[in-house]
Amino acid sequence: MSIDGTTEPADLDLGAVLAALADPHRRQVIGDLVNDADGAARSCTSFGLALSKSTRSHHFKVLRDAGLVHQIDRGNRSEVTLRRRDLEQRFPGLLELIGRERRG
Amino acid sequence: MSIDGTTEPADLDLGAVLAALADPHRRQVIGDLVNDADGAARSCTSFGLALSKSTRSHHFKVLRDAGLVHQIDRGNRSEVTLRRRDLEQRFPGLLELIGRERRG
Repeated sequence: MSIDGTTEPADLDLGAVLAALADPHRRQVIGDLVNDADGAARSCTSFGLALSKSTRSHHFKVLRDAGLVHQIDRGNRSEVTLRRRDLEQRFPGLLELIGRERRG
Repeated sequence: MSIDGTTEPADLDLGAVLAALADPHRRQVIGDLVNDADGAARSCTSFGLALSKSTRSHHFKVLRDAGLVHQIDRGNRSEVTLRRRDLEQRFPGLLELIGRERRG
């Protein structure tokens, strides 16, 4: 962990990443981000998840803790970005699988 | 599902596969099989899992149900083989990630 609580690329844990991605809602978020433009920042409400706010917040915490996304608080809303480069470096091909499933 | 209960390649579900691989014991088994010769059949006791028989059986059932392995009962023991070709076809690159983590 770095000082700001971000998981360093070398510390990304495959088990935690796979557990995060095993959930269909979390896989939907990551799939959408994979298929977005590189570096895209999206609000947590933009993914169309039919979930309560607290459940949605939990899912984003799991994604953040596993190192899949960075989350930035912007006052009354949060934005997330995919840690595409870090993930590609540590787990090549994994994001493409998630993006491809989402494209159907 | 085919008549013998095997998940067909087209029916392999990414969520079930990722959930199966999120567990470190199950990832150890698959990592070993990935790094074994293609088509290798191994007894379920050969992976050095420090688990009770019932817990071990549970983990192999999860792997079988997710479509990661075929399991063959040979009287008083079971052998497993990796569904390497099916998995490579459906989820290219995933097995390599698991094998690489196991090689360290």
